Amino acid sequence: MSEPALQVSGTDFLERTGPLPPPASVGMTLDQVDTPALLLDLDAFEDNLGRMERSLEGTGMRLRPHAKSHKCPAIARIQMARGAVGVCCQKVSEAEAMVAGGVPDVLVSNQVVGAGKLARLAQLARRARIGVCVDDPANVEDLALAAQAAGATLDVLVEVDVGASRCGVAPGEAALGLIRLIAQSPGLRFAGLQAYQGSAQHLRTPHERREAIAQAVAKVRLTVDLMQRAGMPAPRVTGAGTGTYRLEAVSRAYQELQPGSYIFMDADYGRNLGEDGQPVREFRNSLFVLSTVMSRPTAARAVLDAGLKAHSIDSGMPVVADLPGAVYTSASDEHGVLSLPAGTDLELGRKVRLIPGHCDPTVNMHDWIIGYRDGRVEAIWPVSARGAFY
Amino acid sequence: MSEPALQVSGTDFLERTGPLPPPASVGMTLDQVDTPALLLDLDAFEDNLGRMERSLEGTGMRLRPHAKSHKCPAIARIQMARGAVGVCCQKVSEAEAMVAGGVPDVLVSNQVVGAGKLARLAQLARRARIGVCVDDPANVEDLALAAQAAGATLDVLVEVDVGASRCGVAPGEAALGLIRLIAQSPGLRFAGLQAYQGSAQHLRTPHERREAIAQAVAKVRLTVDLMQRAGMPAPRVTGAGTGTYRLEAVSRAYQELQPGSYIFMDADYGRNLGEDGQPVREFRNSLFVLSTVMSRPTAARAVLDAGLKAHSIDSGMPVVADLPGAVYTSASDEHGVLSLPAGTDLELGRKVRLIPGHCDPTVNMHDWIIGYRDGRVEAIWPVSARGAFY
Repeated sequence: MSEPALQVSGTDFLERTGPLPPPASVGMTLDQVDTPALLLDLDAFEDNLGRMERSLEGTGMRLRPHAKSHKCPAIARIQMARGAVGVCCQKVSEAEAMVAGGVPDVLVSNQVVGAGKLARLAQLARRARIGVCVDDPANVEDLALAAQAAGATLDVLVEVDVGASRCGVAPGEAALGLIRLIAQSPGLRFAGLQAYQGSAQHLRTPHERREAIAQAVAKVRLTVDLMQRAGMPAPRVTGAGTGTYRLEAVSRAYQELQPGSYIFMDADYGRNLGEDGQPVREFRNSLFVLSTVMSRPTAARAVLDAGLKAHSIDSGMPVVADLPGAVYTSASDEHGVLSLPAGTDLELGRKVRLIPGHCDPTVNMHDWIIGYRDGRVEAIWPVSARGAFY
Repeated sequence: MSEPALQVSGTDFLERTGPLPPPASVGMTLDQVDTPALLLDLDAFEDNLGRMERSLEGTGMRLRPHAKSHKCPAIARIQMARGAVGVCCQKVSEAEAMVAGGVPDVLVSNQVVGAGKLARLAQLARRARIGVCVDDPANVEDLALAAQAAGATLDVLVEVDVGASRCGVAPGEAALGLIRLIAQSPGLRFAGLQAYQGSAQHLRTPHERREAIAQAVAKVRLTVDLMQRAGMPAPRVTGAGTGTYRLEAVSRAYQELQPGSYIFMDADYGRNLGEDGQPVREFRNSLFVLSTVMSRPTAARAVLDAGLKAHSIDSGMPVVADLPGAVYTSASDEHGVLSLPAGTDLELGRKVRLIPGHCDPTVNMHDWIIGYRDGRVEAIWPVSARGAFY
């Protein structure tokens, strides 16, 4: 034991041991997997990949899945092998992990600000095709300086705010001004419009989603029409998520789609309704947090070992997959309280699968994805971009 | 680039690169720190340590801070150097990280279930003093088997449900039954009662907190009185958190306190009120997520680069520390939207400190704690138990 130090100073790297080993090994049954663990039902996952492929057949749409959902190069490579043109990322460090893991084409579907991050982005563009979004003229100038310093060329997309009220310039003239600035900036190549309507993805009724995407499409068209009147070639338009991608796909305004969650799904997407008023069941739940019953204090209550540090409750509590009538009622750091119907047989040590409320931030809490089929572990994939938020 | 594989199988460890390097180096100014970053104001942190020490002076209370808040052995060592008798952890892997980092006395203030985890816990008890909580007779038997197999002795505390309705046996006879079972189990040593009233910590008024802890104390007393009538020695009673520790400290029912958040504080604890109806300001906010303005789409809106993957919103949105009137209104994976009062001067690239809604799960998203003083980075500590939920 090192001497306790009252004086706080300096670095203290030696005790860092890196990520814990995976909670499973290949061939184990799910009962043998340590918990909490992030499980991937490989049959459901592959079904989801196939459903997306078939859904886009004949539309001419390019598929560029969002890697912020999985943060896992092994999954990105599978997506590319099945026709994806590349992936999206949200951060430079996430893109670095994807390029290191063999992905040759990454769009950072986000703004990148700050000299250090821009330098890393430009360096990455020497090893792979890299795109990035802008919504500010000063940022375009900084990007150009970074690209020139690295001797690299960056694809630059102008983000248009198509209704989400997050980032992006207003549709129309503001976008054109940025496009002209990109076109005259050495080291940069104008590569299209980023037009993601994030707030439409979880609107519950198909009517609301149609309305939101119709408005997004109108804003895209306004901008593209202005460009054409100004003699500019038609840009590639990219956007869409799992909740609305079919609408963008048939809009004739988009050429590339960015869904992420379709491979996993989650409890919140499970609340989107279809035309029949029933939950949309286009994609299957493939992602689960495996937990263990660690306390069984009363007949009506069980406590699981998976809480706020094993899944994200930003979009609501997880849904219990395997126990009819059981409800996950509250989460603390490392506990999840289940309310049980009378007569539930659930002894200490039993494994329970949870469907996370929100897949993306849940995946980011785990170092490993445990792929299983027919009740046995088949693949163990590192979540290489876990914590890659720089 | 490795060949994309349609066939998902086997392990794929090679691309794992471990945690990213820290976002800062010692001596940097805060403006130079990459973001998002978890900042610790060392003056405020040390003030908080001192305030807790002074607050417990003369009470005879043992302080066993909860390490689930910081997951950082460097901080645990500082706490012990200032009088803590050891730390609490919630998981075996968290305890392993603390022992590896030089902490000789760890109470796992939680149930541990499953042969693999129990074997690790018992192994750890060969290297350090290790306690664990129980609320089930079968679990006591499993613990005894694990301790005997490892040739170790485990301290075992009976968890009593004192009002949180999470884990724990009912006060009274049920607790006595478990204590007798522990006493006759080789490898186990009865070490007291765990009596943590978690749901009292964030009750907003002092009246509510007093009532909740009065009830907890009554449940402790009921159990202790029964033990004394049965001829058992008075047990050590341990519990309490940052929101109520002063109440347990003067109750004469507790001998050991387990606060965790007092070193950091967070936005949610900031909403607890004191006798004067004003927020309690006993401890200072020392923990911040440093973020960067990555988009400034309108005069009333800025977008930060810290979202759901940089801080936890389970207890509400973060509070903006440095911009009067600015409100963090919504979080997506890697974005935080700020609503700004008219005339706010906040250009692209500006750094903004956020007070996390809930400190514990926020710390768990970060690999590094960046300690600073007088605007300069002074310490970089690995969050060694980040992700240690096994």
